Amino acid sequence: MGKRGLLIVVSAPSGCGKGTILEQVMKKQEFYYSISATTRKPRPGEKDKVNYFFLTKEKFEELINSGQMLEHAEFVGNYYGTPAAPVEEHLAAGTDVILEIEVQGAMQVKKKCPEAVLVFILPPSVDTLRHRLNKRSTESEEVIEERIAKAHDEIARAVDYDYVIVNDDLDEAINDFMTVLAAEKMSVKRSGNVINEVLEK
Amino acid sequence: MGKRGLLIVVSAPSGCGKGTILEQVMKKQEFYYSISATTRKPRPGEKDKVNYFFLTKEKFEELINSGQMLEHAEFVGNYYGTPAAPVEEHLAAGTDVILEIEVQGAMQVKKKCPEAVLVFILPPSVDTLRHRLNKRSTESEEVIEERIAKAHDEIARAVDYDYVIVNDDLDEAINDFMTVLAAEKMSVKRSGNVINEVLEK
Repeated sequence: MGKRGLLIVVSAPSGCGKGTILEQVMKKQEFYYSISATTRKPRPGEKDKVNYFFLTKEKFEELINSGQMLEHAEFVGNYYGTPAAPVEEHLAAGTDVILEIEVQGAMQVKKKCPEAVLVFILPPSVDTLRHRLNKRSTESEEVIEERIAKAHDEIARAVDYDYVIVNDDLDEAINDFMTVLAAEKMSVKRSGNVINEVLEK
Repeated sequence: MGKRGLLIVVSAPSGCGKGTILEQVMKKQEFYYSISATTRKPRPGEKDKVNYFFLTKEKFEELINSGQMLEHAEFVGNYYGTPAAPVEEHLAAGTDVILEIEVQGAMQVKKKCPEAVLVFILPPSVDTLRHRLNKRSTESEEVIEERIAKAHDEIARAVDYDYVIVNDDLDEAINDFMTVLAAEKMSVKRSGNVINEVLEK
């Protein structure tokens, strides 16, 4: 083997079923699901290195400044980001890595790791998304409309991803996800070794 | 729909099972299998527009000069090539098109049609290829060694393709081929419409 794992970045607006898809996908194959780092305080029940890497502001900034954060953002006074080291370790060991992050973070990863595969999960339509959010939500219509507006902006950024998967039927979407990974593993940019092996045998 | 078909270029050294793979693949889905044009005379039983488009040298050169050949080559005094018109018609109608051509032709198509998907079919090893050629061939060892040398050169060019599929197990190779096409149809460069449709609905 000796083949690097795939770095897979997955984004989707809230309500697109991304969590369910990834949960099922992770039953089909071994992945390292990347754990984010944050400077916010752990909430009751949250564990370090399980829910987040809980870091001090100083430590987090040190990692940013030494290029050891694949992506990061500040949100209401706290940092959130993806530490590069565990991701790199798993990729080097041949394990595929999933980063479930937002559009801005995805664009940072794309810049730092051009070999990353960026997948955007789409709802069948914005109307379907509105319907799903209405059904599950206890929130006001105003909040839902805010989310829809945010989803709209995010979906427009899907053009900067590599693949779009429409989550109309859950099983199909899971299958589509696995198809993308399988095809990427046959792509020549990841198969230089294969060609050499064939030639040398 | 209104979605363009995929232009799929397939190459492989002789003995890699490309013919069998494509035959099976074409049972799974509708394709237009591109017919080549040539200036050589039809052999007994060969039909115009079935085996080849049989063209005069003048007509062939006219097509070259007016940019209506996707790729062409000269071989023992005759031209061989792929006329662009039928390929374009089928792509525009949403039909996937298969071009089974050699490496040089594939490189010409890649230049003219950057959206083409180039697939190279590999034998598990050069040794396996030698074994397969020996088994099926009535030719001398010298001829076989010449073919192996040619295969070696061709395989080294696989790095210029998009995907490599190792034909170790036939069913797996067929499945791999379909996987590549399915993933390509989810690629954002072909899915701009999908994103817009989701946004507009």
